[in-house]
Amino acid sequence: MAVQHPTDNETARLEAFSDGVFAIAITLLVLDLKVPANLAQDQSLLGALADQWPAYFGFLTSFATIGIMWINHHHLFGMICRFDHPLLVLNAFLLLGVTFIPFPTAVMAAYVEKPGAETAALFYSLTFVVIAIAFTLLWRHASGERKLIDPSVEAWQIEQINRAFRIGPATYVFAAMVAPFSPPVSVAIILLLALFWALPAHVRARLPGIG
Amino acid sequence: MAVQHPTDNETARLEAFSDGVFAIAITLLVLDLKVPANLAQDQSLLGALADQWPAYFGFLTSFATIGIMWINHHHLFGMICRFDHPLLVLNAFLLLGVTFIPFPTAVMAAYVEKPGAETAALFYSLTFVVIAIAFTLLWRHASGERKLIDPSVEAWQIEQINRAFRIGPATYVFAAMVAPFSPPVSVAIILLLALFWALPAHVRARLPGIG
Amino acid sequence: MAVQHPTDNETARLEAFSDGVFAIAITLLVLDLKVPANLAQDQSLLGALADQWPAYFGFLTSFATIGIMWINHHHLFGMICRFDHPLLVLNAFLLLGVTFIPFPTAVMAAYVEKPGAETAALFYSLTFVVIAIAFTLLWRHASGERKLIDPSVEAWQIEQINRAFRIGPATYVFAAMVAPFSPPVSVAIILLLALFWALPAHVRARLPGIG
Amino acid sequence: MAVQHPTDNETARLEAFSDGVFAIAITLLVLDLKVPANLAQDQSLLGALADQWPAYFGFLTSFATIGIMWINHHHLFGMICRFDHPLLVLNAFLLLGVTFIPFPTAVMAAYVEKPGAETAALFYSLTFVVIAIAFTLLWRHASGERKLIDPSVEAWQIEQINRAFRIGPATYVFAAMVAPFSPPVSVAIILLLALFWALPAHVRARLPGIG
Repeated sequence: MAVQHPTDNETARLEAFSDGVFAIAITLLVLDLKVPANLAQDQSLLGALADQWPAYFGFLTSFATIGIMWINHHHLFGMICRFDHPLLVLNAFLLLGVTFIPFPTAVMAAYVEKPGAETAALFYSLTFVVIAIAFTLLWRHASGERKLIDPSVEAWQIEQINRAFRIGPATYVFAAMVAPFSPPVSVAIILLLALFWALPAHVRARLPGIG
Repeated sequence: MAVQHPTDNETARLEAFSDGVFAIAITLLVLDLKVPANLAQDQSLLGALADQWPAYFGFLTSFATIGIMWINHHHLFGMICRFDHPLLVLNAFLLLGVTFIPFPTAVMAAYVEKPGAETAALFYSLTFVVIAIAFTLLWRHASGERKLIDPSVEAWQIEQINRAFRIGPATYVFAAMVAPFSPPVSVAIILLLALFWALPAHVRARLPGIG
Repeated sequence: MAVQHPTDNETARLEAFSDGVFAIAITLLVLDLKVPANLAQDQSLLGALADQWPAYFGFLTSFATIGIMWINHHHLFGMICRFDHPLLVLNAFLLLGVTFIPFPTAVMAAYVEKPGAETAALFYSLTFVVIAIAFTLLWRHASGERKLIDPSVEAWQIEQINRAFRIGPATYVFAAMVAPFSPPVSVAIILLLALFWALPAHVRARLPGIG
Repeated sequence: MAVQHPTDNETARLEAFSDGVFAIAITLLVLDLKVPANLAQDQSLLGALADQWPAYFGFLTSFATIGIMWINHHHLFGMICRFDHPLLVLNAFLLLGVTFIPFPTAVMAAYVEKPGAETAALFYSLTFVVIAIAFTLLWRHASGERKLIDPSVEAWQIEQINRAFRIGPATYVFAAMVAPFSPPVSVAIILLLALFWALPAHVRARLPGIG
């Protein structure tokens, strides 16, 4: 299949399908939160809910990360104006990672305070490493020789994305390396990366070593 | 990131993503309704289904409230014609609250007749307080100096929304204050607020103290 | 709120939200199908899967019925070109019924062969009665004095819908009346009604007593 | 109901509804992955996660297959420009199969290493046979005498699709025939078929016996 020059409508359907998958994956995260059952005699509901902090921590981290990924996807596809067969396949690979997220989130929440916490945090952070790789491959394919990029996009815009792709994946790799030593810190790094992107650009720009 | 002047299509994608999250969250509520299992010898299915009234009460209340929030969101974004980075972040914060709703709904339904009912009702109503705050922040950001508002929107329309935002959050705070004294009444207040918005405007306008 | 004359885009968002709810409700039905666990020594997987026929029966009936309702909704909103506050509320009432369907489906499947089957079948058929009432109210509101109807719609088209609304709800009421005597027959009637609409129009027209 | 000549918008709503169902079904697959509970004294979390390989295998196979089916559906509806009543019904039959997939996936994953594996793999592959039949019927109906096909579509494009429809269903039938002899190989054939479509067209064309 050669490079396609679809009408606007065709790219729109690819984006709409991806949006649907992002929206569903982000909403399914709530199914990992379980109502406390069989409270012990001396346990209050408040205590039982508080004991589930790893589940809320995981919910928040995965929500924020999927949210950032959605914005990111949105941003990339604002520049991509054509698609070809490899782009479809790479996008499917990306969505495979996104739909998978609720599972390692649940594993991490269940084991972060138990034996196996290192494995759980590693599994969780590696999932994001894989998704970051999928994102990078997708972008490199689309932007290489500007094959699928809208002609109106400026070179510095592409360069800006390239620079961001140097930070994101590296942070997830770092989180994965921290996992065997301190599982909660590993997850916290992933949450902080998501919250970092929520900062206004001018604040982010002032942080050392970035931008 | 400076204020963006996206094409219509860009705002549309933000709204479509939000709609997807609202639609999924409202539909997932049904998963909190459980088929009665292991009926006692002298128990009928009708009795077992009737005993689950708190679950239906929660289903109805959360459904009606998410429905009203969707209409509200729809209404605000009918006036908002641009987005910037803070709007994206505030909208994500709002959606975080919306996707969370099935969990406190399930907790409330499970505990409203047991020890811990006060905690459960407080947890439930505080969730709506947080969402109401997210809505207020989003609207204040968008309407402040009319930064992101469509030029064709009239001042009285903005003022009408501002007035509505004085009622909604206050009602949820009131429901939260009632929770420690009477959990079911607290939930009933939230349901009544949603049903109130379902009344025709001319009936609502005649109610004392509002409008 | 007076009658609104929204742009095409506004009605589209209402339809898109409704479509999302229909699509999610129809897809969540699969969660009522459970993997057979703990097979008895002398039981094959094939036997265990076959024993779950009520669950497949319910899945198929609810799928077909939601599917027909979606086509119906689509058809009505092809004629409705404006919306007002009562239409929004009636549509929300309709969607409340649609999102609820997976629950009575699961109850029916769990009890159709056990004590309580009559209650389960009655609960199932009454759910569709309520949805049919919501549909009827929505259509009467929209078509009364042609308030919200596209001017290009012909009188006979409205009359055709009115006629269909005389069959549908009555059939669900009939199914509910049969439920206390024969639960499986009651469900079969609902399935047959859905399959009936799947017949080509010229075949349907030849069936006696209809059309 | 005679052949309809809907506006673009009408076909769009049918496609959007189908997209929603595909997106939800593909995302619900993750609910079949269960967090390992009650690890034995001498069992690590890594071991417990690794023991679940059939669940990942099923997740991947069903994800890839639904993904290919979505691309396929997209492709067909790029050529179909009108719809009639039978097309709606055949599309509903297709979506019935797609929403069903998470169930045989879960059955296959639960039994592929236990007694009943042959039944489970047969059930899984037969599901895809049925979906392939639905696809074929839909396409034959739409393309027969080019009834519902866009006039700008060339004859060779229709012939290309016809040729692809000779491979797909046959492969699923072959997988079903292998199921009683080697359940895992049967599933692997289905996965390989999906991965095959992910290859670039020029690589696929060079494979013997195809194209």
